[in-house]
Amino acid sequence: MASQVLQISSVANEKIKHLIQLSRKSALREKEQLFVVEGYREVNRAYQCGFAAHQLFYCPEFLNESIHKIQADQVYEVSAKVYEKIAYRQKSEGVVATLKMRSNRLEDISFSGSNPLILVIESPEKPGNIGALLRTASAVDIDAVIVTDARTNIYNANCIRASLGGFFALPIALCSNEEAISFLKSNHYQVLTALIDDDSTEYHLKDLTKPTAIVLGTEAEGLSRTWQQESFQPIQLPMPGKVVDSLNLSVSGGILMYEALRQRSGS
Amino acid sequence: MASQVLQISSVANEKIKHLIQLSRKSALREKEQLFVVEGYREVNRAYQCGFAAHQLFYCPEFLNESIHKIQADQVYEVSAKVYEKIAYRQKSEGVVATLKMRSNRLEDISFSGSNPLILVIESPEKPGNIGALLRTASAVDIDAVIVTDARTNIYNANCIRASLGGFFALPIALCSNEEAISFLKSNHYQVLTALIDDDSTEYHLKDLTKPTAIVLGTEAEGLSRTWQQESFQPIQLPMPGKVVDSLNLSVSGGILMYEALRQRSGS
Repeated sequence: MASQVLQISSVANEKIKHLIQLSRKSALREKEQLFVVEGYREVNRAYQCGFAAHQLFYCPEFLNESIHKIQADQVYEVSAKVYEKIAYRQKSEGVVATLKMRSNRLEDISFSGSNPLILVIESPEKPGNIGALLRTASAVDIDAVIVTDARTNIYNANCIRASLGGFFALPIALCSNEEAISFLKSNHYQVLTALIDDDSTEYHLKDLTKPTAIVLGTEAEGLSRTWQQESFQPIQLPMPGKVVDSLNLSVSGGILMYEALRQRSGS
Repeated sequence: MASQVLQISSVANEKIKHLIQLSRKSALREKEQLFVVEGYREVNRAYQCGFAAHQLFYCPEFLNESIHKIQADQVYEVSAKVYEKIAYRQKSEGVVATLKMRSNRLEDISFSGSNPLILVIESPEKPGNIGALLRTASAVDIDAVIVTDARTNIYNANCIRASLGGFFALPIALCSNEEAISFLKSNHYQVLTALIDDDSTEYHLKDLTKPTAIVLGTEAEGLSRTWQQESFQPIQLPMPGKVVDSLNLSVSGGILMYEALRQRSGS
């Protein structure tokens, strides 16, 4: 922690007003390159993943853990009344922090492994779905996630929360479809596009041990023509049942990533 | 449709009051063995899966499809004002129906295949999670789902909706843990319990082509001691990532069911 702890007991305090604006407005987050994380566990996970805290707000009444490990440029002790104003969840463990964004530029993502596995998510809309995919992607320890033409801000609290730390652990690139396609082509990835189509190969028949990108479309519309018109390899999940003809996006993504992990584990 | 269509234009009509009570109160549903389904697609899916409609309420202003195929004991044409009172979703396609429950007794579930695959879900709490599991289970065309010691009523509208028809397509048994365990033992199932544990085998190393039951615990607490103390076979999903140490329940279930399908397809 920073050496000096400032006290805030008024909800009208400028720091508090600014924090609330930051949690609500994606344009402000973008401008200041800061985002808001709530709860001891989440803040601690971010810290362990190398995110730097700009401001740390804590409320002794709601805190069960020591926050001395968490470094921040500024630390504020807030009253219970102020905490209730800044916390979105009732049981959020007495800590809210503003964290410094990392680069989400595609060119800044570094791929440590020689045999990368990448997940591409086209135009996701629901923060909870992105978060659930990041959770599984992080469990599988894939190399990076590329979110193209996002229709929601990934720094949304629901996205971060649903990822259970996956948001902090994974390199995440934000770019256009065209940039992602150009990147995957020039780096010679095997690009597998999830498409329910007669021409699609069942996912498990593909060799997923090569450098591979798995591309998921939106739940409502599937992959756009931009991806379909490329000469990539369409894959699908078989659905022998007669009633259900689609899967939840986070379930589909989970099955595909775990099949890659299974093949890569050599079994 | 029934030959006689009755008109309802008052929200104070007894049939309307009863319908609203039925959608809200699980005890009333249980007593009358009826449940409520909203939306043309959902009602049609139920009908195609052999569910019988008791009452069909439709509103011409919101209806885009012909409802003549759907048989019901009683058909009511309702005014827009009444429909807005009984519909929970804005775009619910002008149809609400009460359907007759089927038996959810374990002893009434018939297993057509010689090599059944069953999903067991212990004490699920969130209707959306049950629905998502039923959706995948139906896509995979598993033989039955057993829900033990349910903490939520499976006839909840959110559960049915999230299943995208899986709810109607699958035999679903409701029973206690003890009854399920006794059933699985006496029918000589290979019982695989999802447990994150040092002794658990990685899921894909198991032979899932035998008659198998996959048992999932709650997301918050995992499987109870009741299941753990039995001499069943614990399985787990490997998580090589360093941050995320659990998966969403519907994602875990999806991965396990698709691995069974993959093995059973012979690849």
